[in-house]
Amino acid sequence: MLKKNKVLLISVLLITIIIGIGFIPAMHQGGHEPATESSESINTIFDSLKYEKSIHVLAMLLLGFGFLMVFIRKHGFSSVTATFLVVSIALPLYMLIKTYTGEEFSIVNIDSFILAEFAAASLLIAMGAPLGKLKMDQYILLALLFIPAYILNEWIILESGIFEGFVDVGGSIVIHAFGAYFGLGVVANTLAKFENQPECENDSISNQFCLIGSMVLWIFWPSFTSALVAPNEVVITAINTVFALCGATLATYVFTRLIRGKIEIEDIANAALAGGVAIGSVCNTTTPGYAVLIGVAAGAVSTIGYTIIAPKVEKLIRGTDTCGVHNLHGLPGVLGGIFGIFISGTADIQLGGIVVTVVLAFVFGKITGMVIRLLGQKEIPYSDEDEFITSH
Amino acid sequence: MLKKNKVLLISVLLITIIIGIGFIPAMHQGGHEPATESSESINTIFDSLKYEKSIHVLAMLLLGFGFLMVFIRKHGFSSVTATFLVVSIALPLYMLIKTYTGEEFSIVNIDSFILAEFAAASLLIAMGAPLGKLKMDQYILLALLFIPAYILNEWIILESGIFEGFVDVGGSIVIHAFGAYFGLGVVANTLAKFENQPECENDSISNQFCLIGSMVLWIFWPSFTSALVAPNEVVITAINTVFALCGATLATYVFTRLIRGKIEIEDIANAALAGGVAIGSVCNTTTPGYAVLIGVAAGAVSTIGYTIIAPKVEKLIRGTDTCGVHNLHGLPGVLGGIFGIFISGTADIQLGGIVVTVVLAFVFGKITGMVIRLLGQKEIPYSDEDEFITSH
Amino acid sequence: MLKKNKVLLISVLLITIIIGIGFIPAMHQGGHEPATESSESINTIFDSLKYEKSIHVLAMLLLGFGFLMVFIRKHGFSSVTATFLVVSIALPLYMLIKTYTGEEFSIVNIDSFILAEFAAASLLIAMGAPLGKLKMDQYILLALLFIPAYILNEWIILESGIFEGFVDVGGSIVIHAFGAYFGLGVVANTLAKFENQPECENDSISNQFCLIGSMVLWIFWPSFTSALVAPNEVVITAINTVFALCGATLATYVFTRLIRGKIEIEDIANAALAGGVAIGSVCNTTTPGYAVLIGVAAGAVSTIGYTIIAPKVEKLIRGTDTCGVHNLHGLPGVLGGIFGIFISGTADIQLGGIVVTVVLAFVFGKITGMVIRLLGQKEIPYSDEDEFITSH
Repeated sequence: MLKKNKVLLISVLLITIIIGIGFIPAMHQGGHEPATESSESINTIFDSLKYEKSIHVLAMLLLGFGFLMVFIRKHGFSSVTATFLVVSIALPLYMLIKTYTGEEFSIVNIDSFILAEFAAASLLIAMGAPLGKLKMDQYILLALLFIPAYILNEWIILESGIFEGFVDVGGSIVIHAFGAYFGLGVVANTLAKFENQPECENDSISNQFCLIGSMVLWIFWPSFTSALVAPNEVVITAINTVFALCGATLATYVFTRLIRGKIEIEDIANAALAGGVAIGSVCNTTTPGYAVLIGVAAGAVSTIGYTIIAPKVEKLIRGTDTCGVHNLHGLPGVLGGIFGIFISGTADIQLGGIVVTVVLAFVFGKITGMVIRLLGQKEIPYSDEDEFITSH
Repeated sequence: MLKKNKVLLISVLLITIIIGIGFIPAMHQGGHEPATESSESINTIFDSLKYEKSIHVLAMLLLGFGFLMVFIRKHGFSSVTATFLVVSIALPLYMLIKTYTGEEFSIVNIDSFILAEFAAASLLIAMGAPLGKLKMDQYILLALLFIPAYILNEWIILESGIFEGFVDVGGSIVIHAFGAYFGLGVVANTLAKFENQPECENDSISNQFCLIGSMVLWIFWPSFTSALVAPNEVVITAINTVFALCGATLATYVFTRLIRGKIEIEDIANAALAGGVAIGSVCNTTTPGYAVLIGVAAGAVSTIGYTIIAPKVEKLIRGTDTCGVHNLHGLPGVLGGIFGIFISGTADIQLGGIVVTVVLAFVFGKITGMVIRLLGQKEIPYSDEDEFITSH
Repeated sequence: MLKKNKVLLISVLLITIIIGIGFIPAMHQGGHEPATESSESINTIFDSLKYEKSIHVLAMLLLGFGFLMVFIRKHGFSSVTATFLVVSIALPLYMLIKTYTGEEFSIVNIDSFILAEFAAASLLIAMGAPLGKLKMDQYILLALLFIPAYILNEWIILESGIFEGFVDVGGSIVIHAFGAYFGLGVVANTLAKFENQPECENDSISNQFCLIGSMVLWIFWPSFTSALVAPNEVVITAINTVFALCGATLATYVFTRLIRGKIEIEDIANAALAGGVAIGSVCNTTTPGYAVLIGVAAGAVSTIGYTIIAPKVEKLIRGTDTCGVHNLHGLPGVLGGIFGIFISGTADIQLGGIVVTVVLAFVFGKITGMVIRLLGQKEIPYSDEDEFITSH
C-alpha cells in the first residue's frame, strides 16, 4: 500500500516536471510573444486592466470555490488542499495543451491565462459533485482527465464553426453547465442503494467559512463575466452581473423560506450565486432591468433545485452530488443558455450547443469516474483524518 | 402567522420584480448610454480603472461589513444573510430612484454604480445599530425606507446648491454620519428600561471572523475614498487614507489599553477603522503628515466612544447600538466633517451641512424604526435558530 | 508595572504623532509633487494601475500574513493585532526615513508606497520567527528597529552601486531572505535548553483561518512580483509567478506525504507559497516552463526545510522559529537569488549580494532581539488572555 502511494506521488511529481519542460520548446518555437512593443502602448494598458480581473478570478478559484466547499465539517483541510492541487494542475495543463493544439494560442498572453482560469473554474464545479468521496490522488487524476475533455468541448462549441453564432461570453454553458454535468457523470452509478447514503455533516463554523467562499464568489463575479468582453462593455457587463446576483439573492431568500419554512443557510450560500451563472450567456448584451429578472428566475430555479429537484436527480443517476453543483451550475447554466436565444436569434444553434455540451460533459464525466475509481472507491465521505495529520 | 409570513415573502418577491421591470422603460427613454464610443478611448480606460475600485467597495460591503457584524456568537448566519439581502435591495433601488429623479443620472455608468454602493455602505452602517434585534423581513423593510431618505439628504447637501462648497468627497458626513445617526434613530426609545438590556454574546471564533471583516474594510478603504476623485488625485488620496488608518490603529491600541487596562479586540476591530471614516472629508486635499494626525484623533475619539461615551448615549436615546456605529461612524464622521472646514474655508456651510445631516438622519431613522416595529419588536437579541435551520 | 505600561503606551502615541509631524516640513520643502499634471495623462493611468497592485499587496500584508499567523490556537487576537500594529508603524516610518535620506524619493508617489509595503512584508516575515513569544510593545519596538536596518540593506544592495547588476525585482533576497534571517537573529540564543521548548498548539479551526491567509498570499502574489516591473512585463511576470506557485503547491503535496506519510496542513499552507518567494529574482525574465521548475524546486526545498532542516537550524541557533520563516522565506529566497545568476550572468555580484544580506540581516536581528528583551523575555508562548480581555 505504502509502495503504491509512493509510485502515485512520484508520478505527480514527474507529471508536474513534464508539464514544466513541455513549455520550453514552445517558447523557442515562437509561441512566446517577446515584450518588445512600446511599454506605454494602449494594448499594454488594456492587458493590465485584464490582469486585474484575472486576479479577481484567481480569488474566486481559490478562496471562493475552495471555501464554498468547506461546509462539510470534517473535510475542511481536504477541500482546501484539493482546490489548491487541481488549480495548480489545471492552469499550466490547459495552457500547455492549447499551446500545441490551439491556433494562434500564445502562452504569454493575458487572454490565454484567463481562458485557463475558466477551465479551472469548470473543473472546480465538476469536483463539487464527488466532493468528500475522493482521495487527493483521485482529485489530481480528475484534473488531468477533465482538462482535455473541457478543451475538446470548448473547441467544438466555440471554435470549430459548427455552432457559429452561439452566445456564451460569460460561460453559462461551456463553463458552468459543462462542469456540472461532468460532475454528475463522475458520480453516476456510484451507489449500491441510494438510501444508504449518509448526509455530509456540517456545523455553524464550517458554514461560516463556506459563507466567506460564497461572498468572495459574489463580489468578484462581475470580473469573471467581464474579463474577456470588449473594453467598452465592461461597465454594462458588470452592472448586469451585479443586478442578476441581487435578483437571485432576494429570490433565494423568498423561496428557501416558502419551501422549507425556515432559511437554509446553504441555499443562501449557493443559490444566491445562480444569478451570476445564468447571466453568463447574455451578460454584455442585456440591460439591467432584464438582468434583475434573469437573476430572480435563476435564484428561484436553483432553490427549487436544492429543495425539490435534487433528490429526484440523485435517484435518477444513482449518485450523490455533494455540493449540489447541478442546482447551482447545471440548471441555472442551462437557463442562462436558453436566455441566449433572445440574443443569438437562432434557437437551433443555441439549443444545439447546449445539448451537445450537456451530453459530452456527462459522457466524459462517466468515463472519468470509472477511471478514477480504479484508484479505489468509497461510499461514505472521507474525513480529514484519513489523509491529514490531525492529532495535534 | 405562517400566512402573514407568506404574504411578506411574496411581497419581497414582487418588489424585486417591480424594481427589475422599473428599469426597462428608463432604458428605452434614453437613460441608457449606448456603448458606441471607440472601445479604446481614454474614457473607457478611466471607467475600467473605476470599475476595479467599485469591486473593492463591493468587497467592503459584503465581506467587510458582513463579517464585521459576525462578532455576535449565535447571530453569524443572520448577520451575513441580512448583509446579502440589504445590499441586494439597496444597489438596484438606489439606481432606480435616481434614474427617475436625478438630473443627468445614467444607469449604465460606473459613477452611478459607485454612488449606489456608497448608499449601500451607509445603510449597512445604519443596520449595525439595531443588529440582532430585527428579523430578516425587518432588515428588508429598513433597506426600502432607508434608501429614499439617503437620496433626499444626499440631494440637499451635495446637489441642491443650499450647501454650495460643502467638502465631503470621501463621505465622512453624507455616508458615515448619516448612516450612524439614522441607526441611532431606529433604536431610540426601544427599551422599557436600559438596565434590562442583555449583552450580545461573542467568543473567540466569532471575533476572529469579525477581524476578517475589519481587515477587508481597512485594506480596501483607499478605494472607497478614491473611487470618485479626479484620476490624478488617486495616489495622494490613497496614501492619505492609509496613513489615517495607520494613525487610528496605533491610537486605538494605546487608548484601549490606557482606558481598559487590557486590549479589547472589538476596539481593535472597529476603532482602527475610524481613521478611514474621519479622513473622508479631506482625503484628496490634505497631506500625509496631517493624515496621520487626523487618524490618531479619530482612533482616540472612537475608542473613547466605545469605552466611555457609548453608555451615556445609549441611556440618552434609550436604545442599544449593537455594533457601536455611533463610535465608529458617528463621532469620527462628524470629526472628519469638521476637519473639512480647513479645506472649504467656510465654517457655516460645513457645520450647517453636518447639523442638517445629523438631524435629518436621526428623524428619518426614528420614523423608520416606528414603521419597522409594526412587524414586531424584540428586546433581547435574536439567535440564528429563530429563522434558520440549525438542527444539522 | 502599570506605570511602566503607561509610559510605554504614551511613548507609542508620541512616536506616532512625531512620525505624522515629521512629514509636514518635507511636504513644504518640495518633497510633494503637486498634482498639476493633466489628469488624463498616460502616467496617471500607469499610476492607477500600480495603485490596484498596491491594494493587492496590502491584502497580503494584513489578511495574508495576519491570518497565516493565526495557526496558533490561543494566539489569534495577538497575531492579528500585532500585524495591524507593525504594518501601521512600518508604512509611514519607511516613507518618513526615505523622505529625509533617499535621493529623489517623493512621498506622494505610488512607487514609494509600494516600496514601503515591501518593507512591511519583510518585517512581517521577520516577526514570524519570534511569534508568540513577544508582547505587543515588543512587536512595536521590533518594527521601529527593523525598518532602519531594512532601509540600510536595501541601499547597500540596490542603490549604493556596490552590487551593480544584482537581480532581484521580486524581492527573493532583499525582502524574503532579509526578513527571514533577521527573524532568526531575533530568536537566536533565546533558549536555555532547546528540549524544553513547548510546541505551539493549533487545532482544526485555527488552521482553517491560517489557510485563508495562505490563499490570500497565493492569489495576490503575482501583484507583489509585478508591482514595480515595466508595464509591458506585467503579464509575463504574473504568469511566471502563478506557474511557480503551481509547481511549489504540487511539490509540497508530494514531499509532505513522502516524508511524513500523511499530509501536514501547515506544509500546504506555507510551502505552497515558496514558489512565489523563489521566483522573485527572475520573475520578469524567465519563461513559464522554467517558472514551473523553479516552483517545484522551491516547494521541495521548503517542505524539506519544515520537516528535516528546521530542527537542525533551531538547535544551531538555539531558538525557535515559530512560523518556520526560514523554511518558507529563507531557504527559497536564497534559492531564488541563486537562480538570478542565470539572468545577471555574474555569480560573484549575485552571490555577494546574497551573503551580505544574510549576514547583515542576522546581525541586525541579533542586536534587535537583545534590545527587545530589555522589555521582558518569555520562553513559553503567550496566550491571548495575557494581553486581551477574553472573559466574555
